[in-house]
Amino acid sequence: MHHREEGWVKILTIPSPSLQNNTADADRLIGALKNRLATPRLEVAIDLELLQRLPFILRQEDSELCCTLFKDLGHWVLVDLQPLHSAKPPAGLAVDLGTSRVVLRMVDLTSNALLGESAFDNPQIDIGPDILTRIHYADRPGGLHHLQQLICEALNRQVIALCDACSRLPEEVLLIAVAGNTAMTHLLLGLNPHWMIREPYIPVTNRPGLIPAASLDIQVNPQARIFVFPNIGSYFGGDLIAGILYSGLHRADEPALLVDVGTNAEVVLGNSQWLIACAGAAGPALESGVTRMGTLAAPGVIDRVRFDRTTKRFDIHTIADRPPHGICGSGLIDLAAQLFLGGLIDFRGRFQARACGNRLIDIDGTEHLVVVSPTDSATGKALTISQADLDSLIRSKAAMYTILETITGTVGIQLEDIATFYVAGTFGTFIQAASAIGIGMLPDLPLTAFKALGNSSLGGATMLLGSDCRMDEIDRIRERITYLELNVNQDFMNRFSAAKFLPHTDRSRFPSVSVL
Amino acid sequence: MHHREEGWVKILTIPSPSLQNNTADADRLIGALKNRLATPRLEVAIDLELLQRLPFILRQEDSELCCTLFKDLGHWVLVDLQPLHSAKPPAGLAVDLGTSRVVLRMVDLTSNALLGESAFDNPQIDIGPDILTRIHYADRPGGLHHLQQLICEALNRQVIALCDACSRLPEEVLLIAVAGNTAMTHLLLGLNPHWMIREPYIPVTNRPGLIPAASLDIQVNPQARIFVFPNIGSYFGGDLIAGILYSGLHRADEPALLVDVGTNAEVVLGNSQWLIACAGAAGPALESGVTRMGTLAAPGVIDRVRFDRTTKRFDIHTIADRPPHGICGSGLIDLAAQLFLGGLIDFRGRFQARACGNRLIDIDGTEHLVVVSPTDSATGKALTISQADLDSLIRSKAAMYTILETITGTVGIQLEDIATFYVAGTFGTFIQAASAIGIGMLPDLPLTAFKALGNSSLGGATMLLGSDCRMDEIDRIRERITYLELNVNQDFMNRFSAAKFLPHTDRSRFPSVSVL
Repeated sequence: MHHREEGWVKILTIPSPSLQNNTADADRLIGALKNRLATPRLEVAIDLELLQRLPFILRQEDSELCCTLFKDLGHWVLVDLQPLHSAKPPAGLAVDLGTSRVVLRMVDLTSNALLGESAFDNPQIDIGPDILTRIHYADRPGGLHHLQQLICEALNRQVIALCDACSRLPEEVLLIAVAGNTAMTHLLLGLNPHWMIREPYIPVTNRPGLIPAASLDIQVNPQARIFVFPNIGSYFGGDLIAGILYSGLHRADEPALLVDVGTNAEVVLGNSQWLIACAGAAGPALESGVTRMGTLAAPGVIDRVRFDRTTKRFDIHTIADRPPHGICGSGLIDLAAQLFLGGLIDFRGRFQARACGNRLIDIDGTEHLVVVSPTDSATGKALTISQADLDSLIRSKAAMYTILETITGTVGIQLEDIATFYVAGTFGTFIQAASAIGIGMLPDLPLTAFKALGNSSLGGATMLLGSDCRMDEIDRIRERITYLELNVNQDFMNRFSAAKFLPHTDRSRFPSVSVL
Repeated sequence: MHHREEGWVKILTIPSPSLQNNTADADRLIGALKNRLATPRLEVAIDLELLQRLPFILRQEDSELCCTLFKDLGHWVLVDLQPLHSAKPPAGLAVDLGTSRVVLRMVDLTSNALLGESAFDNPQIDIGPDILTRIHYADRPGGLHHLQQLICEALNRQVIALCDACSRLPEEVLLIAVAGNTAMTHLLLGLNPHWMIREPYIPVTNRPGLIPAASLDIQVNPQARIFVFPNIGSYFGGDLIAGILYSGLHRADEPALLVDVGTNAEVVLGNSQWLIACAGAAGPALESGVTRMGTLAAPGVIDRVRFDRTTKRFDIHTIADRPPHGICGSGLIDLAAQLFLGGLIDFRGRFQARACGNRLIDIDGTEHLVVVSPTDSATGKALTISQADLDSLIRSKAAMYTILETITGTVGIQLEDIATFYVAGTFGTFIQAASAIGIGMLPDLPLTAFKALGNSSLGGATMLLGSDCRMDEIDRIRERITYLELNVNQDFMNRFSAAKFLPHTDRSRFPSVSVL
């Protein structure tokens, strides 16, 4: 293994005992660890099972030891100790615990090397695809336990498979970092989320901390720990905290903004001095809000659309270049922007019959615009967008813009003051910032200000595996965040109404948007 | 239950959540606990099983909660939480884990009331009556596990019986404080004591700390913790630390001394400023040393002897006033003192034929002095003491005196400077200080300076159950103790030789001793 020392793994030599230095094995080890960690005042605890093996390990020929230890609530806990020459390099798992999809990433804890990745559908989908159904199910007799069992058993199966693929053994896994929304982490830990969805919306805990993997029957190393990213509340989960960590927003000099459009739209604004956050499940105005745009990104789904103003044709791009059978959020935003910029819809999002020509068809008494003809589509049917779809998209984009306007307004800065605009998740990966600006969903910043983060929840969890100072950093992030309850008051509704036009009632906010 | 709050149990009210105070259940609880403990910087951890029950407990009608929490390595851990109106009052167990005998004491953790006591023979006696045999046995395949199982299973049986006798339930037991010598606590914890008896005499740990009872399969409350008193080394165990705590030696203004004559002779000298300790298993001079005096105290065993100088008869007292069948350590010391003071032995401990008269008989070619005639004894045989018995006793008392002289000499004080002389254990309960002074075993201090402590190990363990500041106090005792390795060098041997007379070569040291 590498002799590099990083993160949680320390390599050190324990002095042999002598009549002059005849303190206990554990004391010599702890003394050496405290020296190495340069934290003389922090205590180091040793798991009993490890203590039982300690004298044998210390008396092997090689005096260099590979120690793995984690920080927890103001002390260190040693979870693994091996003679260096025969050490199995400790591994860690980052887990993005999504409502729909769970992604695992295996990392070598010593070298920080990425070993492998896998993903699987959250088996709780069988109980209910959405969080709410699962929370109700948890209240049924045995329901909570069943939900917990589903995810834990799936994790066990997937960990074995991933270890296999990476030529590692489950007992080499010493740390699992889990980032998920508050409901998903509650279900993982067997904590009843009943009160999360009822006023005043209370989770059982905001800081699950470091938990023995054995207490959840996760079959990795018996001493392994699970770090569950803390949450701010019921609607602001550990996935977001992981996202902030990953983006580096909390260390930015200039105000930066992070948007994660998942089950909710969550927004964090801040810099190295302050952090303010809000989540979009704030009221009726946002219901059926920013989340219901199109289908999930998958092969054959339209993710980019261009309207050729000369040929008057749609130039579409599908994921994996397969025949189109649907359109995802980013494709829909592209489409709407192109329709608006090409004059096919007006500033209210209404189809312009003359410009649309024979693309406009009637289906069951509703106007639809044909995007892909039956001959070009994978289904043999035309892919269309209806006026209702557009109206829904416009409400969504207005809600998003209003949230952004509200959160910046709260701290007294302008949207144009945002230096960096991080967009997390699949949405961030596929979205064309220019199009989102074109419909007035995102503010009119220079395109270089927008950064797609990808799976920032998984990225943050992976960062935790890399360094022993991340836990403190996470606590500091959590302590610094001010959570803004979105009051859907008259001010909010006024802003929302003004944002329900393309790009906005106040055109001066979008100088870069020029309509044909 | 009592509404008094002491020690580990805190009663408090958790604010109900509201839209204005909608932090997580655990956060509101931890916040209230931190306020109550007045330790804002100390973290409070909650066991996962308790966290799972937390929201239900917080939402019961009674808002007053009975919380039990323990301090561990710089943080608190909450192990029990109940609505006050229906709370089962938490109980604690103090355990004196002796090599031969184990004593349990049950205490109410809220009121500190003593609930009951029981004792049983350490079942490891079946493996070997002495520590050494058990340590060797631990090296055999499965041996260590077997020894651990023996004591843990016996504890489980006894705890159930004691709970029954006290009308308590095992699940009400939340804290077990165990004080024992280093070998016994190692065997309890499944730590191999192999290296304790081999140079340089290394225990696995000196500070086992707070261990989940479940990890030793001790069937009390699933969240209960076991606090194992720390040791200084292989020959200075947690029983002694408990003894120091119980005696208050570490808070004395004037130098005080604590002697525990158990399997070893252990001595602690100190005051509120400093502590120095040594143990008697220090070398060949002490082998077959202070420990082999007579039989164990039991009914029918002679514990006090007076020689009537007028009638020339022994006036004996037996434990429970039963016919005599043996003599215990304190009886032997009384006897030797009376023989010496009565002129039946000289200052070398030799029988004086003229003074002894027909009490001297020959058994198998050795001189014996008849203490109890066959008609008066329980066995129908004479109870006698031989020259060899006396020689052995004199070596023992010389060793004890030499250790006392050495340890006081090391810190530059005189034996007569000792303000209080604590004598622990059965030995301390039965010994007549005047007799021990008479033979020069203990220094010639005023009799009021001697204090019998009784079972100080159990006493210290009981004190731990009473207060949450004892753990810190124990750590401070442990940190302050300087352990003195007894070097059996020429100085030591000279002192030892001078002490092998009655009361001492230097008679001026024992002004109170006047011989007939």
